[in-house]
Amino acid sequence: MRNVRIRLSYDGSHFFGWQRQDGFSTVQAALEEGLQALVGGAITVHGSGRTDTGVHALAQVASFHIESELSDERLLHAINAHTPAEVVVDRLETCPDSFHALRSARGKRYIYRVSTARFRPPFGRDHVHWVRGPLDLERMQQASAILAGKHDFTSFANTGSPRRSNVRNLSSLHVLPRREGLLFALQSNGFLYNMVRILVGTLMDVGRGRLEVSDVGRILAGRDRDLAGPTAPAAGLCLVRVIYAETCFGRSGRPERPGSGA
Amino acid sequence: MRNVRIRLSYDGSHFFGWQRQDGFSTVQAALEEGLQALVGGAITVHGSGRTDTGVHALAQVASFHIESELSDERLLHAINAHTPAEVVVDRLETCPDSFHALRSARGKRYIYRVSTARFRPPFGRDHVHWVRGPLDLERMQQASAILAGKHDFTSFANTGSPRRSNVRNLSSLHVLPRREGLLFALQSNGFLYNMVRILVGTLMDVGRGRLEVSDVGRILAGRDRDLAGPTAPAAGLCLVRVIYAETCFGRSGRPERPGSGA
Repeated sequence: MRNVRIRLSYDGSHFFGWQRQDGFSTVQAALEEGLQALVGGAITVHGSGRTDTGVHALAQVASFHIESELSDERLLHAINAHTPAEVVVDRLETCPDSFHALRSARGKRYIYRVSTARFRPPFGRDHVHWVRGPLDLERMQQASAILAGKHDFTSFANTGSPRRSNVRNLSSLHVLPRREGLLFALQSNGFLYNMVRILVGTLMDVGRGRLEVSDVGRILAGRDRDLAGPTAPAAGLCLVRVIYAETCFGRSGRPERPGSGA
Repeated sequence: MRNVRIRLSYDGSHFFGWQRQDGFSTVQAALEEGLQALVGGAITVHGSGRTDTGVHALAQVASFHIESELSDERLLHAINAHTPAEVVVDRLETCPDSFHALRSARGKRYIYRVSTARFRPPFGRDHVHWVRGPLDLERMQQASAILAGKHDFTSFANTGSPRRSNVRNLSSLHVLPRREGLLFALQSNGFLYNMVRILVGTLMDVGRGRLEVSDVGRILAGRDRDLAGPTAPAAGLCLVRVIYAETCFGRSGRPERPGSGA
């Protein structure tokens, strides 16, 4: 048995999220079924974390133990041949037995795409959140500066699995102008359930003038989910990087320039 | 009755092409049904030309006569409210009675997107043609220079409706490098049936080394469809501009810088 880690992208609009659920098509199930077809036995795939229904990934990381004589290169191609076209594994390497995609993860980076085009874009509708503008970019950037850093993010988490602490270090949070829209780029040592989408939903309320910039500090201090804005829809969200202490896929775990994308 | 012209974009992967066909979902039918729901009578919509199943448009133009008291602005929104989300009308203006989207058209511009990523991209699979590389860009550009200009393009047309002449002026044909891929940009006073896709398929054969650059002149001179390369798939193709002699939607009909996109 060897331990293997993979990097994969997927179009979340085709799946009921990452996590295996009986009777639903999920990314984890697609990988596990592909591996089972390949080696003939059940294999459990550990992702760096779950993504919800409709959320995309450009560079999710997963690991699993497998009994196979194939080289890394051949195993990579064999997995792609056994998984649906909406899931693409682009890197695979045999790794130390101690590596675990979830437990070894030190942080993640997400982007969230918003379109403010005058008309609903007919292309990529499952990959961008379209809103009627205008959104005040400067106000959103001011509010982002308040939210960035180490805080208790209880107000920005939907009720999920209970955790010992809701303190997270949101090491970067940027709102960047894009052609007919915006791009949010966020990095943290860990995200609470729906945290990215609630941060985005709250910042959009600031951008629209429904909330003041100064409200954001009060929401953070209140530690109450009801104070924050709505959970932004899944379609705009994409996991673009998982950070590990060790070098994975030729990439070191050292922090990069914030907002540099995946 | 007033004559109205519209500019629209659509995601061709949701339609059996532009032209109305009983029992199939087409763009023309979607517009005509929307207009019928709006005004209560049958309206014929004339497109600048057909697009095939799976071919996209960023800026198709169509015209029709309509009995309506609505202002142009209100009519635009009313049409969007009555058409599927995959069709978006972004401009509408009342125009001279003599304007006809097909008969008044003086030229068109298309782009064709090719991905040479190592693995099939999980995103936008209906909007790009993925091939295993490498493709020799320089050879393709040399062949493009031979094909550009005024020629009889019989070798680059699938059998469609018979025409008096297959001579067309391909005023620009560019092959541009893109991140993990290529973009073809073509402009002509008129395209024969499948002409863009056969030009692209032939140039890709040159890029792969299946054809020599010098073969291209021979193919052109042979006036025989069997000499050219395959018809490239619909997914990569997008109509990005229709050119008229008169100013439409605030845009004059004068020629623009080649390859400047839509």
